[in-house]
Amino acid sequence: MKTFKIIKIKNNNKETIDDFVTEEISLTIEINDKELITLLCSQDNINELTIGYLFTSGIIQNIEDIEKINIFCLIQNKWVAHVNLVNNDILKDLTFKKIQAVGCGKGAIIFKDSDILNNEKIISSIKLKDSVILNLMKELQAQSQTFLKTGGVHSAALVKNDRIIVFREDIGRHNAIDKVIGNIIKSPAPMEFSKTFLLTSGRISSEILLKIIKCKIPVIISRSAPTDESIRICREKDITLIGFVRGNRMNIYSGKQRIIV
Amino acid sequence: MKTFKIIKIKNNNKETIDDFVTEEISLTIEINDKELITLLCSQDNINELTIGYLFTSGIIQNIEDIEKINIFCLIQNKWVAHVNLVNNDILKDLTFKKIQAVGCGKGAIIFKDSDILNNEKIISSIKLKDSVILNLMKELQAQSQTFLKTGGVHSAALVKNDRIIVFREDIGRHNAIDKVIGNIIKSPAPMEFSKTFLLTSGRISSEILLKIIKCKIPVIISRSAPTDESIRICREKDITLIGFVRGNRMNIYSGKQRIIV
Repeated sequence: MKTFKIIKIKNNNKETIDDFVTEEISLTIEINDKELITLLCSQDNINELTIGYLFTSGIIQNIEDIEKINIFCLIQNKWVAHVNLVNNDILKDLTFKKIQAVGCGKGAIIFKDSDILNNEKIISSIKLKDSVILNLMKELQAQSQTFLKTGGVHSAALVKNDRIIVFREDIGRHNAIDKVIGNIIKSPAPMEFSKTFLLTSGRISSEILLKIIKCKIPVIISRSAPTDESIRICREKDITLIGFVRGNRMNIYSGKQRIIV
Repeated sequence: MKTFKIIKIKNNNKETIDDFVTEEISLTIEINDKELITLLCSQDNINELTIGYLFTSGIIQNIEDIEKINIFCLIQNKWVAHVNLVNNDILKDLTFKKIQAVGCGKGAIIFKDSDILNNEKIISSIKLKDSVILNLMKELQAQSQTFLKTGGVHSAALVKNDRIIVFREDIGRHNAIDKVIGNIIKSPAPMEFSKTFLLTSGRISSEILLKIIKCKIPVIISRSAPTDESIRICREKDITLIGFVRGNRMNIYSGKQRIIV
């Protein structure tokens, strides 16, 4: 967070105040000296963001695919993540697609259509109580100190056994999710995602689902709205999709068998 | 909008209802048979979106640079905008330098750093009353029928003489702005932007500013938060930046000389 002197107008009264504002950096991910993508993001946990982005984009399959990552500040708020892969052939195999993400950063999403087009369903026996979902969403909001102070970030969290185990924030809702996933991927014993679910403050469009599918996370829960395409994908893949979790209500768009009311 | 049968939970009561959901399509912009970018967007006004995107990305300077645009539906919700440019040399200078240089997917937003790095300030003598801003933001929300029904879209509008002259919605906040700008650019007598300002429901990060600077729009007003980088750019460029316009309050982050309280 940074502090800026700004003018606040309220009921026609004008006063100069110190205001908290969320910070934005640009992070250019380079693989073997080739520029892959520049993300606009928040500055915390950019190592996790890099790993999460590479994983959810299908560039790496696990942390072992990365030989090393050097992250350095180029100038002011411009950062570079220099990544060396163990096997450079990985890059040749992938069919990259440039997708501009909805809403967040100057990001692009790289994925294989086959991730969505195959008929594989997400299998998980996880069950969730509606009351647990409502409480966890309140906890997500309460944990977001930056949001409370700046109103400028999205948050995401991974939940296991009804408990938030990773919580991350970012100016981009995709980035917040990639940080959460990057955190898990880089841990020595990466977790099975099938017993987990993801909480997000952000809207759910199809490219968010791509990340979820890549991890085989069976449940995604949002404070905001889904698009028709994300509902369609969730129903095809048997992913539980819940939106508009606010106060004492929520909408179940897909995968109701996992929710106990 | 589409209708989906969903389960609504409220105070532990469960009912099946028909719910409105916002639609998402993918729009691939091809220039002379080369794929430039795929945008995830709402389906309305994709001609304007294409033109606006090409303009705010610096690929075209005005509508005359476009020979023709054919928009067609490839399959289901996959659309293609096939663009022919009058002068293909335009591409040599800008686009594919950034896109093609690396074989594996690239930034979605294409721009010249010089747009921001030059010292040119945005000059405009426009003055705005705070009460007008508050009313226009209410009007922006009221006009957004899709938002009211689905909660899933952002809106943007261009204002001239205290009146909304173009209003557009999209699942992506960038797209909503590009549609507004595209609408102006494609009109027979494109408007001078210096007497206009832009309203948006979405957060303001630096890539939104790039669009504003490209048009030389002197004022941007948002319902949401700005990032530090967007404040910094606005102060350098002398752009008026107002955020958190809600109820009877707002924050002026930059360019206060244009606001009359």
